Amino acid sequence: MTAMMKAALFVEPGRIVLEDKAIPDVGPNDALMRVTTTTICGTDIHILKGEYPVEKGLIVGHEPVGVIDKLGANVSGYEEGQRVIAGAICPSGYSNACLDGLCAQDGQSALHGLKPMGGWRFGNTIDGAQAEYLQVPDAMANLAPVPDGLSDEEVLMCPDIMSTGFAGAESGNIKIGDTVAVFAQGPIGLCATAGAKLRGATQIIAVETISERIEMSKRVGADVVVDFKKVDPVEEIMKLTAGRGVDVAIEALGLQQTFESCLKVLKPGGTLSSLGVYSDDLKIPLTAFHAGLGDHKIVTSLCPGGKERMRRLMNAVASGRVDLKPLVTHRYRLDEIEEAYELFANQRDGVLKVAVSV
Amino acid sequence: MTAMMKAALFVEPGRIVLEDKAIPDVGPNDALMRVTTTTICGTDIHILKGEYPVEKGLIVGHEPVGVIDKLGANVSGYEEGQRVIAGAICPSGYSNACLDGLCAQDGQSALHGLKPMGGWRFGNTIDGAQAEYLQVPDAMANLAPVPDGLSDEEVLMCPDIMSTGFAGAESGNIKIGDTVAVFAQGPIGLCATAGAKLRGATQIIAVETISERIEMSKRVGADVVVDFKKVDPVEEIMKLTAGRGVDVAIEALGLQQTFESCLKVLKPGGTLSSLGVYSDDLKIPLTAFHAGLGDHKIVTSLCPGGKERMRRLMNAVASGRVDLKPLVTHRYRLDEIEEAYELFANQRDGVLKVAVSV
Amino acid sequence: MTAMMKAALFVEPGRIVLEDKAIPDVGPNDALMRVTTTTICGTDIHILKGEYPVEKGLIVGHEPVGVIDKLGANVSGYEEGQRVIAGAICPSGYSNACLDGLCAQDGQSALHGLKPMGGWRFGNTIDGAQAEYLQVPDAMANLAPVPDGLSDEEVLMCPDIMSTGFAGAESGNIKIGDTVAVFAQGPIGLCATAGAKLRGATQIIAVETISERIEMSKRVGADVVVDFKKVDPVEEIMKLTAGRGVDVAIEALGLQQTFESCLKVLKPGGTLSSLGVYSDDLKIPLTAFHAGLGDHKIVTSLCPGGKERMRRLMNAVASGRVDLKPLVTHRYRLDEIEEAYELFANQRDGVLKVAVSV
Amino acid sequence: MTAMMKAALFVEPGRIVLEDKAIPDVGPNDALMRVTTTTICGTDIHILKGEYPVEKGLIVGHEPVGVIDKLGANVSGYEEGQRVIAGAICPSGYSNACLDGLCAQDGQSALHGLKPMGGWRFGNTIDGAQAEYLQVPDAMANLAPVPDGLSDEEVLMCPDIMSTGFAGAESGNIKIGDTVAVFAQGPIGLCATAGAKLRGATQIIAVETISERIEMSKRVGADVVVDFKKVDPVEEIMKLTAGRGVDVAIEALGLQQTFESCLKVLKPGGTLSSLGVYSDDLKIPLTAFHAGLGDHKIVTSLCPGGKERMRRLMNAVASGRVDLKPLVTHRYRLDEIEEAYELFANQRDGVLKVAVSV
Repeated sequence: MTAMMKAALFVEPGRIVLEDKAIPDVGPNDALMRVTTTTICGTDIHILKGEYPVEKGLIVGHEPVGVIDKLGANVSGYEEGQRVIAGAICPSGYSNACLDGLCAQDGQSALHGLKPMGGWRFGNTIDGAQAEYLQVPDAMANLAPVPDGLSDEEVLMCPDIMSTGFAGAESGNIKIGDTVAVFAQGPIGLCATAGAKLRGATQIIAVETISERIEMSKRVGADVVVDFKKVDPVEEIMKLTAGRGVDVAIEALGLQQTFESCLKVLKPGGTLSSLGVYSDDLKIPLTAFHAGLGDHKIVTSLCPGGKERMRRLMNAVASGRVDLKPLVTHRYRLDEIEEAYELFANQRDGVLKVAVSV
Repeated sequence: MTAMMKAALFVEPGRIVLEDKAIPDVGPNDALMRVTTTTICGTDIHILKGEYPVEKGLIVGHEPVGVIDKLGANVSGYEEGQRVIAGAICPSGYSNACLDGLCAQDGQSALHGLKPMGGWRFGNTIDGAQAEYLQVPDAMANLAPVPDGLSDEEVLMCPDIMSTGFAGAESGNIKIGDTVAVFAQGPIGLCATAGAKLRGATQIIAVETISERIEMSKRVGADVVVDFKKVDPVEEIMKLTAGRGVDVAIEALGLQQTFESCLKVLKPGGTLSSLGVYSDDLKIPLTAFHAGLGDHKIVTSLCPGGKERMRRLMNAVASGRVDLKPLVTHRYRLDEIEEAYELFANQRDGVLKVAVSV
Repeated sequence: MTAMMKAALFVEPGRIVLEDKAIPDVGPNDALMRVTTTTICGTDIHILKGEYPVEKGLIVGHEPVGVIDKLGANVSGYEEGQRVIAGAICPSGYSNACLDGLCAQDGQSALHGLKPMGGWRFGNTIDGAQAEYLQVPDAMANLAPVPDGLSDEEVLMCPDIMSTGFAGAESGNIKIGDTVAVFAQGPIGLCATAGAKLRGATQIIAVETISERIEMSKRVGADVVVDFKKVDPVEEIMKLTAGRGVDVAIEALGLQQTFESCLKVLKPGGTLSSLGVYSDDLKIPLTAFHAGLGDHKIVTSLCPGGKERMRRLMNAVASGRVDLKPLVTHRYRLDEIEEAYELFANQRDGVLKVAVSV
Repeated sequence: MTAMMKAALFVEPGRIVLEDKAIPDVGPNDALMRVTTTTICGTDIHILKGEYPVEKGLIVGHEPVGVIDKLGANVSGYEEGQRVIAGAICPSGYSNACLDGLCAQDGQSALHGLKPMGGWRFGNTIDGAQAEYLQVPDAMANLAPVPDGLSDEEVLMCPDIMSTGFAGAESGNIKIGDTVAVFAQGPIGLCATAGAKLRGATQIIAVETISERIEMSKRVGADVVVDFKKVDPVEEIMKLTAGRGVDVAIEALGLQQTFESCLKVLKPGGTLSSLGVYSDDLKIPLTAFHAGLGDHKIVTSLCPGGKERMRRLMNAVASGRVDLKPLVTHRYRLDEIEEAYELFANQRDGVLKVAVSV
């Protein structure tokens, strides 16, 4: 008889429901994680709404904190019972993309491995983390032990938004003394702000209008928050930089308007670091782009994963350099996850992130 | 009585004519160069057509080879009579942009210096090189002695197209073993192809249809040239890379179509290195951009200038690693420059670059 | 009649004395700064002791804070009376080294400019900052306006030790989540610690034994300070990193022992970032170096200078990200500078840095 | 009954002999390669002489070209009978070091994986390539299919010396227009010369005295070869660079003298890229090191491995950009390998590399 577990399944557009599903077997290079805490991501809402297609019946979620329940036959260096996390993106380690330093774009093909976003498997191409158990592929590349003394909620942001937000700062190649603008202070934008501070930006200008987010933004690192409902953010940023523009502008929303504003506030030679997931073609305005002669860079980053990235991020948490716990504004149990989706999808009640305990 | 010289002046849209103009004085940090050879650039044609506005009466041209005629009072380390070139872009050396490594975006302001394209002065904000004499600003940052044994024509491409084309390869961060596509094989594209080879790309796919350019492309480094009138270049490049896409795609034309094709042939994690001067807003297609999740980079480069860049490029010429002399397809004297413009503006007679001897 | 000023002159080994010297004239590209605050550097002590040779009669000191008194004929973008600093290293901006991104190694030669340490001029090859007035060469590359609201003491560390210490962290190419060891917590080491934190190191292990410095080290960023008189620092660091070693080890003393310890605690693939000024040949132990097969890097950094660097560092101060004021442990007037030398040379009374007001 | 094969075993210092050994089994993530061609490396000679200790009875050799004989149960993406190579260094793909971009320093530990040189397994910690069959660990990270049309000998240098030599150029961060000195033109040095050319160095100065190597050096990329028995190489290089020094100096021998000469010819801000395997402590002379203030870098590189690296190198071969076939000066069959060792260990008969066909 197959052992069963509770899991949040994508049934059809508009419906993610908690149902029973068989606890997965582990292949020789995999591990089975008993999930203890997970969360819901903006991408899950895209899935819920049918905007990002996944197979019907797939378990959603890609941010697991848990305990090793079982190890595949070839997996060594871990113990059952060990507390671990895995990144939202699960590199194989062995693909050409991985070996070329592009782990997030890791495909399954042994020969080429350049499938776009191929590293994102949980809740996308294989069953995800909003469940009692999770099969972690290529376990030796992906399981990262949680340092003693860190709680589930303290490491809950590592698998996705902390890794993604920090990547926005890292890909922007921030230098000491840089001025950085971050457009939108949702969970990803807040992490980008924290990341920009961690890399040495000394003037961080965030753009946001929701008061709780403005508050949180200052807490994690913004020097100034521009309320785009009160002033024109482009004009205001040019004023704040004495006409100089910013060294790096981070887009953390996924809209034409914020993308375009990023370009407009960029100094010649500056970098637009894009984190947003776009739903439409983008336009690059000729003037903001200096006709292609401004030495501008536009860089995009998919959430870096793998156990080494997770180790580093948990180290950052343990050091006290960053504290993202306050981003958890609401708490649910797995059997209340449909309610959690309802709140999060509608962005009610000042929600930033929910913690779902399993 | 003021000494006079012949010079090609922008008179009004449609008219660049050879006229008399006073030989400039040299300020204390400047030098006066007697031009011996110069050329015409695609940008000059934009000026001619009124598409890129400059002041009426300005001398055009930004690619000087010549001899030092006179040195400003503060200029040391050079001798009158010395053969020199200066880059199309003249960094001051002292602006914040320069000191931050962004010489091409050097403005005149001592404090900020971030005026877009501020480093481009010849034939843009000050008198240019299509004349008997040329005032070189910030001479100690810009005058580069020509190594013995190199002819004027051998170094004629250094000031602009060689520097620009190579920058396309450099900004793309090409690695040994990379596959690189270069869209369009005009003078800039050909230099990008040569630059890609010089950086270690081992599969260079050029896109072009004009037979002389296809021929030249193979000569300077292309492994394959795709004729976009015979096959769909995106499909063909995906076929040539076994579906993998290219590591770096260089745009060397300045059109939406080539920009878009670059994105479409890019591997996840690849870089679009843009050299074209665009005339319209650009569109980034959502799918080619993987919704912002493909770890793509789009980088733009304005021609690097300054004496050290020129020294390096002339070194490359002297070493025999690159031979761009064949790009000079036509030769004129300065008093025939209007004729040269007529040919070059209409791209007649298989012209690539003209050499104008003064 | 020549106007005179007070200045600290190197007379002979063992004697730096306050004497009268003529206020310098300004050349066309220079500026005259009225010094308001300066300090004494460890290098000045080497000069005092005759260990680093300079010309007799030279004014020493290379860390000026002051006010523009007079501008050379070609200098624009500044105003007399403006508060400014200049870096210890004064790049010309126009040398090949500068234009190649190596400003500190800037020589005076217009053609080559690769004289080692050529950028260090104040108190080395030209008169320095421990005087009432200071001639700043290549003023437009070097004068950096002090932002409103910052006091002299708040920016006093920018010209040298902050720039140097931060460079140790920057050259080490620290990444988020790195473990960094900093050997010695004198003024430079403390700045390296602050710099490592600013770049995202999340485990910073400092090595020091003097209690005031241990205290200060924790204040500026160290997570742990290892007292090398109580434990073996190499063993202790290996223990603290669970045998992993550090990603980056910063040498901030200039001795064989610390250099060697850095190598010994380095992980394979790690970087030794060296800031110390050595007095003897160095030995690289075969084992610590893994016979040359450990993918180790050893990088050295001379204090970056120029107005853009100074702007960035003052920005870091203004942001409150770093606070180096506590490093000023003692205060003197210029006419007491011999006394200041006496204290600093003998490292008495817990001195870290002295402020000398002029 | 166990199937047997011929293999070259390390028996004791001074003796590597051809003996029978069992054909290995393949684990689930491994592959069995039938070796068709291999070669002998300088490191094997260190093993032979007992200078580098390995276990008695170990099969030596780490440069395999062959055919897939059998695939482990978990290995997909390959076919039996496929022609493949594997790098001398076999990254696991899943270690922290690998996921941090340090594949050569990959250890076996799932958690830390930072064992120095942990990636070098063939003929070091596991049986090597001088045999009829070779077990390739972590096959999906290491097996690289040979492109059609390339012979065994054409790809024979990829696993080690081409990868190592090129890494010397890559780690030196060569830029277009750089002057590069390469000390010693043995197999590794020759590959470094070829690599320097491939990265855009435009003045390559090699140092060598053996006439065949001088000849080969010019063939693969050297512009000048300095014969150190005829002139002082340091003086000569300073003369050839007009006193400027070189941008990058590559050490390809492993001796104090060449290491020191590299430092002496380095420009301020230059990079010493070290490839040699040293047998003794190294000394850094104070003056050549500018007391630590010359912005010098010393970088070391262990041969990069993994299938993506091999793919790139074979691509370079296929493109005709580099031709290292002439390095094969002697040919043997596996049953003559003791003779091959005798020749190679004594560097007789102008030997560069031997090809051993199996």
